[in-house]
Amino acid sequence: MNRSVLLLIPLVLLVHFQTLAQTASIQRVDPTNWWVGMKNTNLQLLVYGPKAGSLTYSINYPGVKLLKTHPAENPDFAFLDLTISPTAKPGTFRIVGKNGSQTASHSYELKARTSGPKGQGVSSADFIYLIMPDRFANGDPANDAFADMLDNKVDRSVPHLRHGGDLQGITNHLDYLQELGVTAIWMTPVLVNDETLKQEAPDRMQAGYHGYHFTDHYQIDKRFGGNEVYRQFAQTLHQRGMKLVQDAVYNHVSDDHWLYKNQPFKDWFNQWPAYTGSSHKEQALYDPYASAIDRKVLLDGWFTPFLPDLNLRNPFLATYLIQNAIWSTEAFSLDAWRVDTYKYNDLNFLNRCNQALMTEFPNIHIFGESWVGNPVAQAFFVKNRIDQPFKSNQPGGLDFVLYDATNAALREDFGWDSGVNRFYQALTTDGLYTDPQKLVTFLENHDTDRYLSVIGDDLAKYKMGVTWLLTTRGIPSWYYGTEVLMKNTKNPSDAEVRRDFPGGFSGDRENKFSDAGRTEREKDAFNYVKKLANYRKNTPALQSGKLMQYVPQNGTYVYFRYNGSKTVLVATNSLDREVTLETARFSERLSGFSKARNVLTDESINNLTTLKLPAKTVVVLELSR
Amino acid sequence: MNRSVLLLIPLVLLVHFQTLAQTASIQRVDPTNWWVGMKNTNLQLLVYGPKAGSLTYSINYPGVKLLKTHPAENPDFAFLDLTISPTAKPGTFRIVGKNGSQTASHSYELKARTSGPKGQGVSSADFIYLIMPDRFANGDPANDAFADMLDNKVDRSVPHLRHGGDLQGITNHLDYLQELGVTAIWMTPVLVNDETLKQEAPDRMQAGYHGYHFTDHYQIDKRFGGNEVYRQFAQTLHQRGMKLVQDAVYNHVSDDHWLYKNQPFKDWFNQWPAYTGSSHKEQALYDPYASAIDRKVLLDGWFTPFLPDLNLRNPFLATYLIQNAIWSTEAFSLDAWRVDTYKYNDLNFLNRCNQALMTEFPNIHIFGESWVGNPVAQAFFVKNRIDQPFKSNQPGGLDFVLYDATNAALREDFGWDSGVNRFYQALTTDGLYTDPQKLVTFLENHDTDRYLSVIGDDLAKYKMGVTWLLTTRGIPSWYYGTEVLMKNTKNPSDAEVRRDFPGGFSGDRENKFSDAGRTEREKDAFNYVKKLANYRKNTPALQSGKLMQYVPQNGTYVYFRYNGSKTVLVATNSLDREVTLETARFSERLSGFSKARNVLTDESINNLTTLKLPAKTVVVLELSR
Repeated sequence: MNRSVLLLIPLVLLVHFQTLAQTASIQRVDPTNWWVGMKNTNLQLLVYGPKAGSLTYSINYPGVKLLKTHPAENPDFAFLDLTISPTAKPGTFRIVGKNGSQTASHSYELKARTSGPKGQGVSSADFIYLIMPDRFANGDPANDAFADMLDNKVDRSVPHLRHGGDLQGITNHLDYLQELGVTAIWMTPVLVNDETLKQEAPDRMQAGYHGYHFTDHYQIDKRFGGNEVYRQFAQTLHQRGMKLVQDAVYNHVSDDHWLYKNQPFKDWFNQWPAYTGSSHKEQALYDPYASAIDRKVLLDGWFTPFLPDLNLRNPFLATYLIQNAIWSTEAFSLDAWRVDTYKYNDLNFLNRCNQALMTEFPNIHIFGESWVGNPVAQAFFVKNRIDQPFKSNQPGGLDFVLYDATNAALREDFGWDSGVNRFYQALTTDGLYTDPQKLVTFLENHDTDRYLSVIGDDLAKYKMGVTWLLTTRGIPSWYYGTEVLMKNTKNPSDAEVRRDFPGGFSGDRENKFSDAGRTEREKDAFNYVKKLANYRKNTPALQSGKLMQYVPQNGTYVYFRYNGSKTVLVATNSLDREVTLETARFSERLSGFSKARNVLTDESINNLTTLKLPAKTVVVLELSR
Repeated sequence: MNRSVLLLIPLVLLVHFQTLAQTASIQRVDPTNWWVGMKNTNLQLLVYGPKAGSLTYSINYPGVKLLKTHPAENPDFAFLDLTISPTAKPGTFRIVGKNGSQTASHSYELKARTSGPKGQGVSSADFIYLIMPDRFANGDPANDAFADMLDNKVDRSVPHLRHGGDLQGITNHLDYLQELGVTAIWMTPVLVNDETLKQEAPDRMQAGYHGYHFTDHYQIDKRFGGNEVYRQFAQTLHQRGMKLVQDAVYNHVSDDHWLYKNQPFKDWFNQWPAYTGSSHKEQALYDPYASAIDRKVLLDGWFTPFLPDLNLRNPFLATYLIQNAIWSTEAFSLDAWRVDTYKYNDLNFLNRCNQALMTEFPNIHIFGESWVGNPVAQAFFVKNRIDQPFKSNQPGGLDFVLYDATNAALREDFGWDSGVNRFYQALTTDGLYTDPQKLVTFLENHDTDRYLSVIGDDLAKYKMGVTWLLTTRGIPSWYYGTEVLMKNTKNPSDAEVRRDFPGGFSGDRENKFSDAGRTEREKDAFNYVKKLANYRKNTPALQSGKLMQYVPQNGTYVYFRYNGSKTVLVATNSLDREVTLETARFSERLSGFSKARNVLTDESINNLTTLKLPAKTVVVLELSR
């Protein structure tokens, strides 16, 4: 091919595209595929392309019926209501659109559902490990950056840019995680964030390395590996008996999302005369005296100026997001969902979305992030026992109440309402929740100061909180790196609590994935978590057993986990001096037991009349007769 | 009579008493009378006297049937189950007890029920004034002390002894209270406290001047005036359109109570191998994980070593107390009950007692003192919307949650969760209560530091809290003397917050009951409360109107009380500088209104687009079209 021919090609393409722009065509259909045999036989397709809204559609495939076409306000969109009969077979059909002499069409596949594990849920038998994939390990340097993406930088020297971590990096360290006792992986979102840098703070332009700025709901970011690698990642986890939790965001998208740049309806996003941020005051939802405007500002206000707030009351958008959640679960074999910024979403949408997922995947678990400060607020966003106008159907939720209480309990001295009383008291309000065992507990996350820094870098306190996390009710979750004593606060920015896991990246001087790479203090921490997490993994009493707790006294706090076959005693001494604890008070649970094994030290104890509790220590005892 | 005869009299009496001690007799029957026409036709009489338990009883009176006699464990007590037919007529009958040749008898009166007001309840239309009668005013110096009582001192110079105040003293100042806007009187208990001084603190012997140490459930303390004066006091209040609230204590009695000195059953009181105080940890009642022993220590532990803890599970005791509550309501024409130490009582007893009162007096109000720190705990002790194993039937309760919030709101600077946000947030959890309008609100009480001292003696803050109290939901209550700026903390003792009302006692140099006796600052305070309380008294929108509150912003907090005919706007500026508030945000309530009257200053406002709020001020505006 000579040089003049090469020069002609762009011109030809330009002419071709101009013709296309005037001619109706179908460039994209979402969901990008569907399945036969879903419980809900309805499917609504978003059809996008120039003048796609002006076409008259038809589908000719046994068992598939096109019920109705809804042209959108934007002429480039149409929504097609289909039913898929239970008798429909897997296969491919064409979606054909006509407008006079113009014809456009698009191939669409109905797949057979896979038979492997999916929608298994996570339960109090699990131990969830939260990873920010960009920051954990770089297993495939070839996918670190792409020239065709809006943000094409990778630079580990800059806290707010991408660092190159990916799914392969996590896969490479699944042995490490399983050794620790982890049974489920929750990653900050892996959906593509193909966006320009955003002004996250007055002095800081930041990449979407954390994943919360979706630009396409049907693409896993190729810098993490893309759709197929993600699907394989789930399979790998399932083969190991592990589970996969995906992180959803229904409240907003990036302003680089393709459906922000091309909006099907004027009300696809919540619009304001002038920029209006959310009040973050969830009280307006459950306050019996709230005004309509306060509810509106909470729900419809934007999270930041570059995160357009989705109008979840638009029925086409609601269906689009719900179908995407189901599509993701089926396509990638997800086991559970964590839902970001839960409290900012339209409440009816949330219930519809949760119900749709639970209908297709009855064992699935859903736990939203409602960052609130009291149990009444927390209960509002999950299934609860309060008779109030709105009833949430969310089975679980992140337990911010116990998170606050744990950290306060460790920071404060013992007092009437302080120290371990905080932890005790937080649990006493569990009667508000329909099932507190389904709350996901945590010591920290990617949006908080790191646990070890909060508790003053004190290893005794560290073990105390870890022991509570792994022996009390709920589904424990863990933030990457805390097992090897990663610390830091959000000062000067949240990137400080999202540092790279040492050893996950080529050139790292230290490798904390390996025992040899850890200091003695880090080994102590790692082995403590490992011992307790693995004990929990093999001890149903700590998973689904009942809890009985006693009013803290004189700086000590005692509780039991028990079922028909095993009783575990957890005794905390929060004081700076050894305590000898009389056990007569605990006879309701101790009765019949005379011996114990210290689960952490493997010591035997042959007399339970008193317990020696070293200073600032939790003792975990498995009782025997 | 010669000297030798006089010397013989004691000998004769001694012989006579010895004979009596061996002969059965009836010295006392409780309730001391009853009525015909009660809804509950059952009555259980406690019969007390030497060997009263060994007698066979009979009653011969039309419509009265003796169903069963229960001898108590203590041979000096019997309990008689009677039914009183709806057709029984008022009159007197004899309770006759026989044992072989011995006969004992006691006259018993069935009265006609009076027709005057009683059991009217208190509601959010009321303004309750709490008085410690020993400390308010001495209207009858003749009843200050009695030689035949265990504590026969009266000494105003000693904070912990009796000071001589009485019912006549209160009667003398009812004009003063009505001028202030008060509609109901609640006194700390007026039942007799005929007891020795008690060791209330290591360095302090204290009289039962506060009234909470009952020694007889059927006698009003004669130092306050006795039964007949109390009955007249209620009549006087009712003639003035005022109401009377009595303070009940079901949890304990004085160790000088006649039924502690003579216990019908071994389990009349909760007994412990060694003295055991209550844990005060009410969490053990609602905590789904609580142990039995923690519930027991809370409920059955003693309040102090000299306040024996009543075993409310003893069925005879339970009936004795419930009948006493009904007897008191009927005998004295009470309108409502405040219940002391509510959280320490057996829960089933409380519900039975409440129900019995509500059955006889359907409009009665009951509000217990459950001193707790969060709305979940507070809701547990009143009718609530939480589906939990125990459901309280208590219609109201003292609102300690809003008390805490009010004081914190006034002490703290404005912040995300602080300052006026405290007050706002406390109200947002009202959905837990079946009827938050029935909670009794307060700024302080006889057990707390006084309001003015808590808020740093700041008159601007004083007016702010007073305005919230008198314009928000609930039944406002007021502690005596705060209207004339009485202050103090509980340091060195609680007697500091129970000082004598200046002007209530002869020889007082100052008389704050009279305008002339008040300083300019006291006049300002008194007139503020008076103006607002009387406005509330005449403004149904502030009593039973709906509440709408807005999320506080920039140090301001706005709410509305409204009904079909009136809307009142209450706008707080908690900052130290004047604020001009845009009102567009409040259009849901402001729409249709263009003018307003400032209720406190009587100023007219002809433009509601913005509101000028002076520094640290609450503005109360009655809106008009």
